[in-house]
This record gives sequence, structure tokens and C-alpha cells, in this order.
Amino acid sequence: MGKENIKVKPRTLSGFIELLPNKQIQFNKIMDSIKSVYESFGFLPIDTPIMELAEVLLAKAGGETDKQIYQLRKGDNDLVLRFDLTVPFAKYVALNYHLLKFPFKKYQIGKAYRGERAQKGRYREFYQADIDIIGDGELNVINDAEIPSAVYYAFKAIGIDRFIFRVNNRKILNGFFEVLALKDNAQDLLRIIDKLDKIGIDEVKKELVNINIDSNKIDNIMAFINIKGTPEDIFMTLEKMDSNPLFREGLNELKQVINYMRMYGLSDDYFKVDLSLTRGLDYYTGTIYEGYLTDYPELSSICGGGRYDNLTEYYTDKKLPGVGMTIGASRLFGLLEELDLLPDMNTNTVKALIIPLMEDKTYSIKIANILREKGINNQIYYEDKNLKSKINYAIQLGIPYIIFIGEEEETNNMITIKNIETREQQTISIEDTISLLGMEK
Amino acid sequence: MGKENIKVKPRTLSGFIELLPNKQIQFNKIMDSIKSVYESFGFLPIDTPIMELAEVLLAKAGGETDKQIYQLRKGDNDLVLRFDLTVPFAKYVALNYHLLKFPFKKYQIGKAYRGERAQKGRYREFYQADIDIIGDGELNVINDAEIPSAVYYAFKAIGIDRFIFRVNNRKILNGFFEVLALKDNAQDLLRIIDKLDKIGIDEVKKELVNINIDSNKIDNIMAFINIKGTPEDIFMTLEKMDSNPLFREGLNELKQVINYMRMYGLSDDYFKVDLSLTRGLDYYTGTIYEGYLTDYPELSSICGGGRYDNLTEYYTDKKLPGVGMTIGASRLFGLLEELDLLPDMNTNTVKALIIPLMEDKTYSIKIANILREKGINNQIYYEDKNLKSKINYAIQLGIPYIIFIGEEEETNNMITIKNIETREQQTISIEDTISLLGMEK
Repeated sequence: MGKENIKVKPRTLSGFIELLPNKQIQFNKIMDSIKSVYESFGFLPIDTPIMELAEVLLAKAGGETDKQIYQLRKGDNDLVLRFDLTVPFAKYVALNYHLLKFPFKKYQIGKAYRGERAQKGRYREFYQADIDIIGDGELNVINDAEIPSAVYYAFKAIGIDRFIFRVNNRKILNGFFEVLALKDNAQDLLRIIDKLDKIGIDEVKKELVNINIDSNKIDNIMAFINIKGTPEDIFMTLEKMDSNPLFREGLNELKQVINYMRMYGLSDDYFKVDLSLTRGLDYYTGTIYEGYLTDYPELSSICGGGRYDNLTEYYTDKKLPGVGMTIGASRLFGLLEELDLLPDMNTNTVKALIIPLMEDKTYSIKIANILREKGINNQIYYEDKNLKSKINYAIQLGIPYIIFIGEEEETNNMITIKNIETREQQTISIEDTISLLGMEK
Repeated sequence: MGKENIKVKPRTLSGFIELLPNKQIQFNKIMDSIKSVYESFGFLPIDTPIMELAEVLLAKAGGETDKQIYQLRKGDNDLVLRFDLTVPFAKYVALNYHLLKFPFKKYQIGKAYRGERAQKGRYREFYQADIDIIGDGELNVINDAEIPSAVYYAFKAIGIDRFIFRVNNRKILNGFFEVLALKDNAQDLLRIIDKLDKIGIDEVKKELVNINIDSNKIDNIMAFINIKGTPEDIFMTLEKMDSNPLFREGLNELKQVINYMRMYGLSDDYFKVDLSLTRGLDYYTGTIYEGYLTDYPELSSICGGGRYDNLTEYYTDKKLPGVGMTIGASRLFGLLEELDLLPDMNTNTVKALIIPLMEDKTYSIKIANILREKGINNQIYYEDKNLKSKINYAIQLGIPYIIFIGEEEETNNMITIKNIETREQQTISIEDTISLLGMEK
């Protein structure tokens, strides 16, 4: 045993989350609710490794490295920690193509890693909760509506009511750029417009000037992304515009997505068409969405995603179009906590603390076994403290009942139970204890 | 869009687990059962990062590096991936000491990383399911019995019935070595005896000779670790031996642990005292245990742990004794799968596949919404395939019912439902559908 007295200061890496048990229970309950909703739509769980070969995970980046990516070398392998769940999922689908049934609907809640400068609401290790649907060859556009609908029900299930999806379609944007004879600038345009919320209209215009877009086209673009109104207002405006097949295809898809979201039960309070939404990532090919808390539009988005028809192209020649959405689970939890919007929930997992009042613990353990067998979570306090400390322990952990076990209780085959909230105390039979605690939720 | 036709072969790192959804569902259900049992004993969830500062995680190792440890550098930090959940937990307790309530009972199911040579049953990324109890200053020995008892109920809950714990106490071993005047060799002796199962008696003897143990003492040691019988037989033999206070303290603890395990409901089929059990890790100070599948003693252990009174000493001067056990969750799952011992369980998460037989999906989505609202998981098949493919999809995914929605069904506000197993098909109202599917488990 190394008994040397040199201490290492215990600390957790900046940007890494470590919750106390009561917060952890809240987080876990929220994740469990999300899982249940995803399963109710037929999404199946998968769990990919957090580490991949660099050449596999960075296939898309063409071997380029990124300062945010955690890289390591082990033996002969260059490894990276996943920076999202989407790229490893594309690999999973390509790898297991012959074993999966399509359309393949999956969910995954797992950790991802980005070495960002740590700041509020930005983590270096964070949970994402993803759903995706992958088709074999084709994938009906209704799936593009099902994805935000499932996320809608997930948010509802965890007690969030004030959120809204911005919805757009990359084909409309790219079609519009083509009409403006700016096809070659499409990537840059998407990237610059994506910054609108962060840098504002003037800076966006400046950046457009910097990439040599004509000022009349800039005006056109700014007017376009500023089209406001109900989905139908916007559709009508778009229909009157100069267009091309790509534009019309996108518009048609967007109409269907909005229409189907309504069928899935979403009222118009929960989504809006937003032509300024571009999503930074270049793998989206059609529908795109992003969600945020309705009352906090200035805060970061809580989910985002879209249609990607070619994400697996780095791994396979098979056409495997997909659509998906990521909830930034850690970020969402952090936001809800900060805004004091975490739903009220019971975070105590134990119904009763058993406090033995005698040396022999036989009867206490017997009672604990019986209660557990009846599905009543409980815990025995064994340590040698004064009674007040023991009672405080129950109170601090939010355990609602204390069961006292003394000689008399054992002799009469009873227990003494105290309701911490009402302070009511009674000596009752084991059967009555089971009914009392079994009833409580 | 990088449309270049160069493909990267999709593959998963050797030693890393990636399950297909039906296996993932089995694994998740097993983990959920384990969690429920742990919570029924009052263990609370925590979730520590998978990465720590090298100086923090390797505090115990005194900065030494280990070939098995995944290390990386990011910015100014030397980082390591955790190789178990125990050391990060010790850090967590030291760090959060003032915010935790003691005795602190925690569980954690998470991934750990070891760059071992990949071989059957050995993974480089693997789940561990840990429980631990930490006391503030003291920790009653009954906790040493509660730990394997909780694991016992966890195994029972996941349908494993044939397993057994080997139980021993380090104080007996160290006391015995002291009596033999081998106190200075204690670490080596524990390490060598630990290899008994792997290398056999003769090799152990050879290694003892190599560290210059007298042959009569070797005979003594071999006789000692070979003492067999019921716990009471062994206790009686030990009581008659030359002893010292440490030895008697260990024996007394071991008796109590066995006694309390019986009180917790474990029959003698589920544990045995085994004086040859030493556990390799040097942080154990008292009770030690290891569990294996009764019918496969030659296979690797499925859980292990023990009492560690000084694990947090690298981080704090506070005395925080603990006891815990780790289930090798990935290894256990792999073993059960290999031995065909995975309990039968329902791995389909969806009750009905809805197949629209008409272009307009409004009524299908309406039915899906209603069923989901009633807690009936379902999925709509939207893709353009022939009917046979759609029915096969349900069969392959193990979905028990198909609901057909055509014009007639919509007109009459009915649905046609087919039970895949019985092939029975009927056209019924939505209410009847809810009762039919809601009843099914």
C-alpha cells in the first residue's frame, strides 16, 4: 500500500460534466422518457464505440485533422474520439448493411467529444440523443416529418412545452442560388447565412461582399431569407418567384413535411418555415431543421438535423438516404437547469430508510428483504451514529419514510413507521407497511 | 459535397463491441434490470467522465504509465481514458465530499478502456456495472455482505441462476503471512497465489521458490489455501491455527459477512469461502470476492470486488472506507451469449406495423397517434415496396401485429389487424384495437 502522504488534488476536466446523484437521477429520467418516446415510434437502440480509426471517422474530412477532435495513437492505430453520433452511425449502417432491415430506424443516446474552448453551455464531453431513419435506395419524404414529430413528443414527455422548430429545405436554397447564377458559391452562401443569428445582418452582408457577390444579388438574398409569415404565406411567396426544378422540388418537399407534421399532431405553434436556416454541415441535401426554446430564441439551439442522402457514400456504393435529428442532451439539460425549467420530478429512489434500534440486525434485514421483494425500494442504516444523524440522513436524501426496528417491534412482528412530511408515526404490521408504501408513488 | 468515388472500408476497431439492434435491446434490458435491483437497495446513479487528467487518474500508480492505458494529449493536458470505474469514483467522492451524504451508496454502469490484446471475452471498450458504499470515517462490515447480496439479486433478476461467489478476507491472508514471518513478501504472495487458477499449483510453487520462500513455508501456504469445506468447517480449521490479531480480525469479519449474506437471503449454494482467492489489485484491505458461473469455473470471473479502506488516500486526508463490486457487464453478456444462456426475452419494441394501402396517409397517421397515446408502440411503413416485402419486414423485426389501412377501413372508422403468429385477421374498431394490443405484453 502506497501510504505516502502526497495528495493529488481531485478535480474533473474543464468542460466535462459530473453531476451529483439527485441531478443525475433527473438527467437519467429525462433520457429514459426520450427513449420511451423514440421506441413508441419504432426506433431501435444501438450503441457504437466512442473511438474509431481516424481514417474511418475522418473519411469525410479526407484525412484532415481538426483542432477540436481528440486524437490518440495506440499501437499502430491512429484513433479519434467521435465528435458526433452521426458519422459512426453512417459507418455502422454501411458495415452492417446486409444484417439490417430497411427502413432502419435507430436511436442512440451517447457521449461525444469536442475539444472546444470550454464555456457556459458548451461541453467537451456531452450526451447527444439521436434518431435516424435510413432507407435502402429510397426514403419517403414523410420520414422527414416523422423525425421532428418524434422529437416533439419527446420534448413534451420531458415536460418542455415552449419550443419551436425552424424548418427549411436545402433544395430551395440551392435552387434559389442557381436561379441567381450563384451555384458555385452555394457552399459559401450556406455557411455565411448560417451565421446570421450570431453576427447579424450587416456582418452577413459584409461577408457576402467579401466573396464578391453583386450587391443586387445580396439584396435579393437578404430579401429571400427574410420572407416571413405562416407556412402558407411563405409557400405562396415562393411559388410566385423565379424558380427551377430543384427549387420546386424543395418547395414541394417542404409543403409535404409541414403538412405531415400537422398530421402527426403538431400545432403551428411548434414550427415555422425559416428560409434563413441553412445548417452549417455540408452533408444535408433536403429538409433541415433546428429547434430552440420559444422564449429564449437568443440561446443556443436544443436540437437540429435534416435529410442527408449521401452520408454513407464514403463507405459504400449503396444508396442509403437518411434523415435524422440530434438533441443536444447535455446542453438541453444545462439550459433547463440554468433557466429553472427542469420539470418537477421525484428524485428519491428509496421509499423507506430502515433504522435498526438494536444490535442484532436479523429482523431489520428480514423486513428489508420482504419490502424489496414487493417492489418497495429501501435501505438499512447500519452505521454507528446518533439517532438524529440517521433521521437527518433520510431527510437529506429525500427518503419519505423511516422504519424503526426495536426489540418490541421484533417481538410483536410489527414495525414503527414515520412519515417524514406529516411526522405521523405508527406501529403497524408488515402487511400494512407493504400496503402503505406500495400505494405511494 | 465530396463526391469522389474513393471508399473507406467501414470497420470497427478490434476489441470494440457493436451490437445489432436485437442484441442491443437484450443488453439494455439486462442493464435496466441490474439498475432496478441496485436502486431497490438504495444505490444512487452517478456518471463520471470517461477521460481524466493523467496525474489524477494515475495518482495511485505514481505517474507510472501502463501499456494498457489509452493516453492522449490535448492542449496542455495529459489525458487518459479510465481503465475502470473505481478510481474515477474515488476522485468523485474526494472532490464532492462536502456535498455527499454518507454512507454514500452509488451505482454506475459505464464504459472503460484497456488496450489489451484483443481475444475472446476480452474487450478494449467494455461496460462495467459497479456498486460501492463509502463511509465517512467508518463503514460497518455488514456493508461487505450487502454488496454481494445486491449483486446476487441482480443476477437473479437477469435470469442467471447458476453462479457462485468465492469469498475471502485479506486480513486473514496477511495475518497468516505475518505468522509465517513473511510480512515483507505479502504483496508478492498475493500476486502469485492470484495466478493459481491460470497457471496451476506447480507453477505457483515454482514462483514461490523464485522469490526465496522456504520450502516448508511453501508447503504451509499450499496447505492453507487448499483448506476446503463448508464455511463453518473452514472457520473451525482456521480457529485452531496459530494466529495473530490481524488474522483473528479477518476471520471475525469473514464470519460476519457469511452470516449476513445468509440473512440477505443467499443460500449456501451461492457462496463459498475460498482461502486461495487473493484479488490482484493491491487496494483491497479486508473482504474480497469474485463470482463466476457455477457450471463454468474454468471461464473468467463475471464480477469481483472487496473492501478498500484507503482508496481515496491519494486525494484526501479524510478516512473514507469503501466496499464495492464490479460486474464485468460486457464480458458477462458475451459469456451468456456464447454459452447460449441469455434469458429468453422479448426484444421487439413495437406492437404493430401499420401498412397503409392507399396513397393518402392521413388516416394511418391518425391511428398511429391514437395507439401511441395509449402507450402502444407502433410504426408506419411508408416505403414503396410490394406487400410481401412489407409483411416480411414486420416478421423479420418480430413485430407481432400488422394493421392494414385501406379506403374501406377509413370509411368505416375501422382497421384490419393480422396476428402474425396465428395468421388470424380481423377488421375491428379502433377501441377494440386498443384493447387487443394494450392487453398483450
